[in-house]
Amino acid sequence: MRLEFTGAVASRGLAIGRARVREPHALDLGEQSIAADAVDSEIDRLHRALESTRAELGRMREQLQGALAQELGEFLDLHALILDDPELIGGLDKLIRTARYSAGYALKLQRDRIAAVFDAMDDPYMRSRREDLDHVIGRVYAALHRDGGGEIDAAHGLAGEVLVCDTVAPAELAQLVESGCVAVVAAQGSPLSHSAILARSLHLPLVVGAHQALQHVNDGDTLLVDASSGRVVVEPGPADLKDFARLRRGEQREQRALQRLRSAPSRTVDGVEINLHANAESREDVAEAFRLGAAGVGLYRTEFLFLQRRELPTEDEQFAAYRDLVLGMNGRPVTLRTLDLGADKADASGVSLAREPNPALGLRGVRLSLARPALFRTQMRAMLRASGYGFVRILVPMVTCREEMLQVRALAVDCARDLRTEGFEIADHLDIGAMIEVPAAALALPTMIDTMDFVSIGTNDLVQYLLAADRGNDAVADIASPLHPAVLRVLHDVIATGRRCGKPVAVCGELAGDIRYTRVLLALGLTDFSMHPGTMLEVRNAVRGCEHAALRKRSAALLRARDRDAILAVLARLD
Amino acid sequence: MRLEFTGAVASRGLAIGRARVREPHALDLGEQSIAADAVDSEIDRLHRALESTRAELGRMREQLQGALAQELGEFLDLHALILDDPELIGGLDKLIRTARYSAGYALKLQRDRIAAVFDAMDDPYMRSRREDLDHVIGRVYAALHRDGGGEIDAAHGLAGEVLVCDTVAPAELAQLVESGCVAVVAAQGSPLSHSAILARSLHLPLVVGAHQALQHVNDGDTLLVDASSGRVVVEPGPADLKDFARLRRGEQREQRALQRLRSAPSRTVDGVEINLHANAESREDVAEAFRLGAAGVGLYRTEFLFLQRRELPTEDEQFAAYRDLVLGMNGRPVTLRTLDLGADKADASGVSLAREPNPALGLRGVRLSLARPALFRTQMRAMLRASGYGFVRILVPMVTCREEMLQVRALAVDCARDLRTEGFEIADHLDIGAMIEVPAAALALPTMIDTMDFVSIGTNDLVQYLLAADRGNDAVADIASPLHPAVLRVLHDVIATGRRCGKPVAVCGELAGDIRYTRVLLALGLTDFSMHPGTMLEVRNAVRGCEHAALRKRSAALLRARDRDAILAVLARLD
Repeated sequence: MRLEFTGAVASRGLAIGRARVREPHALDLGEQSIAADAVDSEIDRLHRALESTRAELGRMREQLQGALAQELGEFLDLHALILDDPELIGGLDKLIRTARYSAGYALKLQRDRIAAVFDAMDDPYMRSRREDLDHVIGRVYAALHRDGGGEIDAAHGLAGEVLVCDTVAPAELAQLVESGCVAVVAAQGSPLSHSAILARSLHLPLVVGAHQALQHVNDGDTLLVDASSGRVVVEPGPADLKDFARLRRGEQREQRALQRLRSAPSRTVDGVEINLHANAESREDVAEAFRLGAAGVGLYRTEFLFLQRRELPTEDEQFAAYRDLVLGMNGRPVTLRTLDLGADKADASGVSLAREPNPALGLRGVRLSLARPALFRTQMRAMLRASGYGFVRILVPMVTCREEMLQVRALAVDCARDLRTEGFEIADHLDIGAMIEVPAAALALPTMIDTMDFVSIGTNDLVQYLLAADRGNDAVADIASPLHPAVLRVLHDVIATGRRCGKPVAVCGELAGDIRYTRVLLALGLTDFSMHPGTMLEVRNAVRGCEHAALRKRSAALLRARDRDAILAVLARLD
Repeated sequence: MRLEFTGAVASRGLAIGRARVREPHALDLGEQSIAADAVDSEIDRLHRALESTRAELGRMREQLQGALAQELGEFLDLHALILDDPELIGGLDKLIRTARYSAGYALKLQRDRIAAVFDAMDDPYMRSRREDLDHVIGRVYAALHRDGGGEIDAAHGLAGEVLVCDTVAPAELAQLVESGCVAVVAAQGSPLSHSAILARSLHLPLVVGAHQALQHVNDGDTLLVDASSGRVVVEPGPADLKDFARLRRGEQREQRALQRLRSAPSRTVDGVEINLHANAESREDVAEAFRLGAAGVGLYRTEFLFLQRRELPTEDEQFAAYRDLVLGMNGRPVTLRTLDLGADKADASGVSLAREPNPALGLRGVRLSLARPALFRTQMRAMLRASGYGFVRILVPMVTCREEMLQVRALAVDCARDLRTEGFEIADHLDIGAMIEVPAAALALPTMIDTMDFVSIGTNDLVQYLLAADRGNDAVADIASPLHPAVLRVLHDVIATGRRCGKPVAVCGELAGDIRYTRVLLALGLTDFSMHPGTMLEVRNAVRGCEHAALRKRSAALLRARDRDAILAVLARLD
């Protein structure tokens, strides 16, 4: 029977496929016993499932590459950690052997027991960690029901199917794409969630907040998903299919048009050149950025070199990585950001850090670098050495006050002198800039900009701090919108201060690569954008459709708007 | 042998007394076995120690009252929770019975085991939680060595003694004061830490960062602590004692002078009236505020009614509490802040909330109230009913945008209509104001102030968000200083916007009660302060020593200062 419902648009795109329904709480099963002589084979079955899950996670880990590798990798590492937890696994054998429970029921009991420990500990991470725990246990449970040995065959996984679920976790999105899943419809979630952001980067159509999805869809139903409008049609009729074909043709036309922009200039209708830089984390990203005609690398996240390893990378290792980047960009500028680790990420790295109740407000970025002079000096030397091979700029994250920039500059001078004495060829001059993401630095920029050669606005964190709303927390995702008068005002003022002082200003947060905000940023005076290479052609296309002078004229109206609706109204008139 | 060393001033004051040295890591003991026939008595001994510790925590909990009860109570509740954890306690008996370990060694093993679990969990709270765990285990261990039965006798605890330790936890400060401890000297810590703030409120002299303290001081040494200059003298000579007597006389004179200010006006030298309001959490605070001639209650934290209980307080319960406050202030305004709970505090209350990775950036304050309409409506009705008994104002915490204030006002109108229909007498008009603590609200205040009858700046959170530095995290305590150009600029602008629009502006964070900042705030134009009653006379004294016009003239110089040193230099010239 044909049926239609809607949700919120989290990641645009069109898809058609059979529904694969994933009910929540698949582990709500009752007591299951086994016969005495089945104990050994049941334990074997469990261990095959554990092994299979371990292999699955390892394979997912290996397949990660490019700009998202770091973010997704952290989730996967955490999951592997849970799977190896002796507390979890140790009890399972015992439950099967002594209580003669089935492996599935033992799994449920152990999960409940550990979840209770999480509860008792008054731990603010509990919810997300319990979700992770459930996710891992769910994987083991699924492996058990594939009967031990066999691993998921990615090709047969969800090939051509639409996942219909309660919630979708960031960590599973890459695997879903890998397994051939064509779209996801989730009953819960927000378009501003972490999952939504990742889905957009992966170009996986995602509709969230489709509250009726689990009631209305059955396994095997044909679904037509128009994630660009949030519309889902169950068992579509001929008219729907015709409509869908029309939409898809439009989409394909758009894609082809975008591809033709690979070598086109990023210039507005009235001839203003806009510089589109790429955010990069790997050599592949750099190669892609170069192919797309990026003006340079606007943000290279050096954390990548520190994560997923036990020891710190040596100066030579870091140098080699930076040099390759610089050579890969063939003379175009490469902006290397110094280590931007915090307590929330340090576990996956060779840097040991104390845990913090609010890691977003803790010892991170340049604060950490200045607190670990040896670590910082090694990185600074490696960056300076790379400057002998091309156009290097150094970007300092999480700057709060002048003193920090002055310390960084003094260190750079010191390292440069040493390196020259040691006989290294390094650039005569090297620009050192600051990430503007701490509100105080944005507001006091006029008193600090003399310590910076350029400025890069990290809108993700800046917006999060200005609004005191964690963008990773779905409970406040609606508050964490950049369309707040204060956010526009701060962006405008930072850009204007840069222009007045002759210092380049770029935006390198999510906003820069999101075409919903291209016109806002142009209106506020921005001329340098840095984004994931995957969104560069879309943004270029958007830029090429804009009349710069007309947008700039609307800046005052944008800044006068007193709430989100008023801002949206001004934006609508910009079209 | 006489010896002198210094640390940082965390809480001013003078003290003399014998040293009580607490070495860190008292649990670093080797394996200790017991005889087979001693097992039962050892287990008894352990359980007496556990019981004694439980009683100790319970007694500390009961003794808490007044403005600090909430903050300290949370730490104690957490500790009680750890003590009752079956994971911890269950294993102890077993270790004693099967492995024949001593109770002390079993305690060490269990602690190490649980600490390892914390480690494995990638938990950002781990460090603080491990400290809590160590603290609780340390208490049990101490109880064991008092040999089970006896509880600490507060009178003989640390009466007249100076605690010399590695670090001091916020939760133990109240008990230290209670036990007669006259000062604390800690080798670690920062003057901006949570412990420092609490020590100041408790008037307990505290020197922190005295790195040499543990090497140089032995149990029983006589110590002279001048926490006002950070100086500690070990085994003082006659000249030191004479000096000390002089300092103490000066201190006492100051105290007597302060007490004479109880009924004096809070007026500057040049006759400008400054309104000093009190922050209050209990009826005792309100009585004290009234005695001290407070202009009103500037901040009543209603969380107090929600914490340490399993069910939500009813409308009638809340009404009774608010009414008593209002009656206690006898016509002076009482500012009731609506519920300001977040995920970091909800556990100790009847409000159930999901955990969050960064609770400071989560669902809290008015965000939570608007997400729980039934809860909010009950509180709003109780507040409106109290308005029939005196001068009530409603203060809304964590406001980020206009829409929130408009929703709160609509709810107030709705509740007022219902209450009048039901026959309640309520005030004709009631002022509804906003806490300005989210940076975006401070910056966009001109676009939002029409939705507010008054404004109260919550400097604790505002500074924390502006600088992206958690004030409870000692690793970034130095960054979390209000003496940043951006903080002064934002305070100035908020105060100026209020004046321009004819809306009263108060500061109700720590800054308002800290005499180091009184002149800064007056210079920026503030006329309404709200503070803990314990600091009101000091602030009044500071106000009475200021020349308002001269301070106001320095405002521009303060705002021009580009770093902390420059701000301090301007401040020095204000003296």
